[in-house]
Amino acid sequence: MTQAVSPLATPFPVLPAIAGVTPRVAQARYKAWDRNDLTFVTLEAGTVVAGVTTQSKCPSPEVEWCRAQLPGGEARALVVSAGNANAFTGHKGRAAVEAVTAKVANHLGCAPGAVFVSATGVIGVPLPIDKAEAGLETAFAAAPCGWADVAAAISTTDTFPKGAMTQAVIGNTTVMLVGVIKGSGMIAPDMATMLGYIFTDAAIAPALLQQMLSSANKTSFSCITVDSDTSTSDTVLAFATGKAGNALMAAHSDAGADAFQAALADLCRQLAHLVVRDGEGATKFIEVTVDGAVSDESAHRIALSIANSPLVKTAIAGEDANWGRVVMAVGKAGEPAERDLLAIRFGTTQVAEGGLPVDGYDEAPVAAHLKGQDIRIGVDLGLGTGRATAWTCDLTHGYISINADYRS
Amino acid sequence: MTQAVSPLATPFPVLPAIAGVTPRVAQARYKAWDRNDLTFVTLEAGTVVAGVTTQSKCPSPEVEWCRAQLPGGEARALVVSAGNANAFTGHKGRAAVEAVTAKVANHLGCAPGAVFVSATGVIGVPLPIDKAEAGLETAFAAAPCGWADVAAAISTTDTFPKGAMTQAVIGNTTVMLVGVIKGSGMIAPDMATMLGYIFTDAAIAPALLQQMLSSANKTSFSCITVDSDTSTSDTVLAFATGKAGNALMAAHSDAGADAFQAALADLCRQLAHLVVRDGEGATKFIEVTVDGAVSDESAHRIALSIANSPLVKTAIAGEDANWGRVVMAVGKAGEPAERDLLAIRFGTTQVAEGGLPVDGYDEAPVAAHLKGQDIRIGVDLGLGTGRATAWTCDLTHGYISINADYRS
Repeated sequence: MTQAVSPLATPFPVLPAIAGVTPRVAQARYKAWDRNDLTFVTLEAGTVVAGVTTQSKCPSPEVEWCRAQLPGGEARALVVSAGNANAFTGHKGRAAVEAVTAKVANHLGCAPGAVFVSATGVIGVPLPIDKAEAGLETAFAAAPCGWADVAAAISTTDTFPKGAMTQAVIGNTTVMLVGVIKGSGMIAPDMATMLGYIFTDAAIAPALLQQMLSSANKTSFSCITVDSDTSTSDTVLAFATGKAGNALMAAHSDAGADAFQAALADLCRQLAHLVVRDGEGATKFIEVTVDGAVSDESAHRIALSIANSPLVKTAIAGEDANWGRVVMAVGKAGEPAERDLLAIRFGTTQVAEGGLPVDGYDEAPVAAHLKGQDIRIGVDLGLGTGRATAWTCDLTHGYISINADYRS
Repeated sequence: MTQAVSPLATPFPVLPAIAGVTPRVAQARYKAWDRNDLTFVTLEAGTVVAGVTTQSKCPSPEVEWCRAQLPGGEARALVVSAGNANAFTGHKGRAAVEAVTAKVANHLGCAPGAVFVSATGVIGVPLPIDKAEAGLETAFAAAPCGWADVAAAISTTDTFPKGAMTQAVIGNTTVMLVGVIKGSGMIAPDMATMLGYIFTDAAIAPALLQQMLSSANKTSFSCITVDSDTSTSDTVLAFATGKAGNALMAAHSDAGADAFQAALADLCRQLAHLVVRDGEGATKFIEVTVDGAVSDESAHRIALSIANSPLVKTAIAGEDANWGRVVMAVGKAGEPAERDLLAIRFGTTQVAEGGLPVDGYDEAPVAAHLKGQDIRIGVDLGLGTGRATAWTCDLTHGYISINADYRS
């Protein structure tokens, strides 16, 4: 956290403890810093787990380990290392994962496959096993901590800690959901990235939790972009301890399942927005909504094409109502689009429709909207009912400074 | 040309006249500037034409006009307007194209379909027909000019004029090829973009010229990227007057066709490199070579994934040997890749192979390479024989300044 705090930062909320979840943090000193960089969360027996991981073809060994264990559906612990991504480290990286999971399994008396791991930070350097083991010993003996400590300990170049909560009523039982997340760009100093953890006391079957997380991911983490770069380490895990005492949810048709799905989607969206708000160099939060596409998938690709366009993002940074760049980004997406049906909105102002600027277009309200921190771009393709929203931040000198004005 | 000249600029070469081609330039004053912004090139009867245009789904009416006329294969004139892209202007834009082509056709006594047009600059504003017509009148009366004047007149935010030449021997005849091009980012002030024109005195059938240009395009203009944004107006046209007197080339098997294809590909590559060298904010020219992919197409997509990565481009700007970002960009391309077979080279130094850093990796020669202006990144996927090269520039504060520190 060496950069100035993002101007889009929000205060860390008051988050409740989740029954069955005990977090602890410690200093493993993966880098030459004086801060907690190892997170150790114990989960009571009976906790189920679901997860989504990076689409990268070059995933870290931690990602591979999580993917291998997720079908088991059971979790007893989570270990997160910050400062070293352990990615692209071959057999040495795999050995580090095995050492960490074996040590925790031995400590808790559980199967290694119930220990989930993540790592984030510099790549190409194997996670030092001695530091990880010493850090774990410290964590084993540490007092439990709060969520703000966890959010800080999993951070790398994040400029503020990120957490959120929500709840759902299932029958007569209120279940709590808490999430913490880190991510700021896809890198800096090397390949720090998005890691998110959700904890709930709900009783839910692991297969259903996985379906719900995958669904929530599609309208949250999969709809944000800071710089279009995809990390080797992206991981979101959801742990459910079942301690709330609700009747077990095992199918979408079970009582409360709809409410829980909605709460999970809301929490994921909150967490995803926090990552965008800490986008490297960000000064504006941008929501891009695409309507009228031939399908939701097509709308999603067009929304991301706009959200990833350096020219759209620099225009917003410059508070420039340059809607021609939005036309360009629609055109380059490769998806069905008819220039002469296209309509574009900035904030609540229609700027173009039917393939040309609106008659008597007045830039004043658009200019006023662009001076704010929360920017909305709306596109209507006029072709069908496909709809999607994406979130991003602007592209500024801050991004260049963080990523280029630096020598490893 | 208000920005400082690119540090990667090269001097404008001495270019020969091409028999049958007569260029003229004039001031249409599409913007409030005191420079030539209208180019009018006449082509003697018998000139054939081929072209490639943008993949954008929102092309300008000029692009649509060129696409409609290209199957005819004949050209008598080229008109290029700089300062106004005439894109996203609906029926008003189409009317401007019709007015320009009709006026030239009337002047030359040819079919309007033999008049090719391009426009580049601000979008969403119809090309003012009165300025275009007055500019054409001035051009009709002007003395012929040289290629440097043409290269300057087609520029918008380019920081230096761009041209190149080559030749080929066909039978006993030497034919000349000259090209001029403009492009610097995909925009600034709005959506300036890549426009390229190639003139040759070779005698060649239009269908063969089209095949050869499409082929040359695949290893040149399609392999460069400045910021991943695709314009509404990209156009490359090749005109062949047949005045060299060589035996007509009508098939790839005809005498000299191989030599001409090679010369055309070489000229396209030279012109494409010039665009990268004037990339907005560029301080480094970057060549990305991918070997060992499952196919050439797969290698091309991976090379562009690396060349488009903001994190790779900012690392090069910072002279940072951050090869982990190359791993990331390979991983995100969505193409077949095996992390544990991947090898990466900077300059001539192998930095990683077999999925991890090379033993005893010494960063010193890589750091020295990165201090230069011409950077080479090599990736070997170890899967097959697919191969491709892409060219790009670094991403710097200059890019942000040009595109964000600006209000329309």
